[in-house]
Amino acid sequence: MAFSQRVAQLKSSLIRDILAAAQQPDVISFAGGLPDPALLFWHESESPLPKQLAQYGPSEGEPTLREYVANYARQQLGIDCQAQQVLILSGSQQGIDLVSKLFIDPQTPIITESPTYLAALQCFEFFGADITGIPLSPTGIDLPRLQQALQQQPAFTYLIPTFQNPAASCYDAEHRQQVVQALQAARVPLIEDDPYRDLVYDEVERRPLCAQMTADDSWVYLGTFSKTLAPGLRIGFLIASPDLLPHLLRLKQAADLHSSRLGQYLVLQAVSSDSYQSHLQTLQQHYRQKRDVMQRALQAELSDIADWQCPAGGLFFWLTLKERLDTRLLLPDWLKQGLAVMPGEAFYPENQVELGHLRLNFSHASEQAIEIGVARLAAGLRKALDD
Amino acid sequence: MAFSQRVAQLKSSLIRDILAAAQQPDVISFAGGLPDPALLFWHESESPLPKQLAQYGPSEGEPTLREYVANYARQQLGIDCQAQQVLILSGSQQGIDLVSKLFIDPQTPIITESPTYLAALQCFEFFGADITGIPLSPTGIDLPRLQQALQQQPAFTYLIPTFQNPAASCYDAEHRQQVVQALQAARVPLIEDDPYRDLVYDEVERRPLCAQMTADDSWVYLGTFSKTLAPGLRIGFLIASPDLLPHLLRLKQAADLHSSRLGQYLVLQAVSSDSYQSHLQTLQQHYRQKRDVMQRALQAELSDIADWQCPAGGLFFWLTLKERLDTRLLLPDWLKQGLAVMPGEAFYPENQVELGHLRLNFSHASEQAIEIGVARLAAGLRKALDD
Repeated sequence: MAFSQRVAQLKSSLIRDILAAAQQPDVISFAGGLPDPALLFWHESESPLPKQLAQYGPSEGEPTLREYVANYARQQLGIDCQAQQVLILSGSQQGIDLVSKLFIDPQTPIITESPTYLAALQCFEFFGADITGIPLSPTGIDLPRLQQALQQQPAFTYLIPTFQNPAASCYDAEHRQQVVQALQAARVPLIEDDPYRDLVYDEVERRPLCAQMTADDSWVYLGTFSKTLAPGLRIGFLIASPDLLPHLLRLKQAADLHSSRLGQYLVLQAVSSDSYQSHLQTLQQHYRQKRDVMQRALQAELSDIADWQCPAGGLFFWLTLKERLDTRLLLPDWLKQGLAVMPGEAFYPENQVELGHLRLNFSHASEQAIEIGVARLAAGLRKALDD
Repeated sequence: MAFSQRVAQLKSSLIRDILAAAQQPDVISFAGGLPDPALLFWHESESPLPKQLAQYGPSEGEPTLREYVANYARQQLGIDCQAQQVLILSGSQQGIDLVSKLFIDPQTPIITESPTYLAALQCFEFFGADITGIPLSPTGIDLPRLQQALQQQPAFTYLIPTFQNPAASCYDAEHRQQVVQALQAARVPLIEDDPYRDLVYDEVERRPLCAQMTADDSWVYLGTFSKTLAPGLRIGFLIASPDLLPHLLRLKQAADLHSSRLGQYLVLQAVSSDSYQSHLQTLQQHYRQKRDVMQRALQAELSDIADWQCPAGGLFFWLTLKERLDTRLLLPDWLKQGLAVMPGEAFYPENQVELGHLRLNFSHASEQAIEIGVARLAAGLRKALDD
């Protein structure tokens, strides 16, 4: 039996093993990117669910939800767009699959940040992309390296400018402007992934790069309701420049015909409800507090052996060890101690792996568990450094 | 800007245009494969939806629904399988995407029936498959032609043995057995798509081919809840042989992380309810009656200019015109008369297109509309034959 060449790219099960271990009841998990279950938004109404949602629906998504997204994008993000440019997705992960299908043949050059979102990396590598990863500082991507890589005419550049996963960086205004100018000059499409923007704890520049794009540019903006409402519904969206949208729509149709109409209905109910804004504020306050708990615990336990920036938003701390251990080797010991974390090595494109980073999620564990977990983390690191 | 080679394969918008036209209020549609809206199964309970479904869930699907599917497959389909072999999908269309990703590189040979399910054909062609279509008779695929094509060692064979879309054929017991033996002898994986099996109107052999597979064989069985419950929920499933399942699971994870948990919950509620069996019976009676109305109308209007078999199940009649007109050319006229039908030409692999067929759906239109629509169909055909 012969599988496609693509299948050889399917990554090993390290990450799946960590996430499975993180499900064990006694394990403190900093590993995933799960919202706090206490803060998920849910349909509490006892009014019956509209029966017309049982029938097949449009591949583009429900017209009312597309209108809502377009309005939100114009008014709150500053993105110049119409509802016809919106495609509702079965979670924003699906947008990454569709973009990969649209652009990537074996050996197609593309650009990502380095490190970057693991499941995007896996998807791009699976389709055979030749990935150039550009290093990140806390305030943005390395501009000279980006400009150099753009000279290869990559098929697209995939960026997470705001509260990046895993590096927790957030582009400042200057980086945002200069990256847009560089992409426009090179005429390279931008794929902007923006799942964390509403999880904001400090005042900081968050204007999407897509808001600076003009009618001549090619771009896709990926958004989701998973981080603020309920990931279990699997509803996200993309907004695309008019040259790309028709192709993405046909790819969406071939992938799953359309997204759950009930999920779309519940999302629209939630974001239209009076309590949505106060829900967002509660979420921000609550996560800010957890972030602060982790920041204090890290300062107390790890400041002599690791560096990090306190994240202004999002779900993660990104630690850089002063001594660049391969953190993958420490995992079994931490798991034995009841702690699940994500090794930083997993987030780099192949052949660009950098040692000595850890990604720590602070949204899912309780405050007390954060403190205990950081102590376990520190004990494991000190033991490894002593060996 | 450079798209992937794949994108050149995205089909023109003919089908989308027909389906869009079919949405117009005055148009009688025999075009799509939509269930009768009056017969969709829905969540009528006023008990609140369980809040834990808001969180991320497993990529494999909800354990309880996987158990249900495995039980159903063992007891009602005779497929020897465990819950670990079940993967819940965002509609069974997603299974076609995952199978394509698993097996198809550009020029990979595969086998399908000819004609076959349009969205599968599009997906396979999109990934670059070299498709050999094998002709169908009302009782099964052409066995000598299948055996010949299997000698090329195709990556897989995709079949819809029961109430085929579009040809309405149903393999008899002998064809089922001989096809399985041929696939086993050639060691070619079977992808069996079985969405229509519960829409059965006459007694007929329906045992899945996968029920005859052994532990040495590679196979994927695709099922759905869209035809019997509610397509808007977008929940289907696959069952795969143990050698294929782990790959399909990782592809599923990369595609959309997991399927809507709420959809999975509602499906499990529905299929576990006391009224589900009587719902299926109602569905069968109702669709049988509509089938009979269309059969009588066709006999009255078209028996001198077309041939067809009355379908024993499923959603479609498949007409073969005695004079092999290109039915695509008749569409504009029918649409002008308020009738939407699917040209048979669309269902053939590229370079194997056969003229002079029409697919007529009988589940969606009312009985009265079926009679009026068949009269319009006949008038259009006679006019074309006179020209």
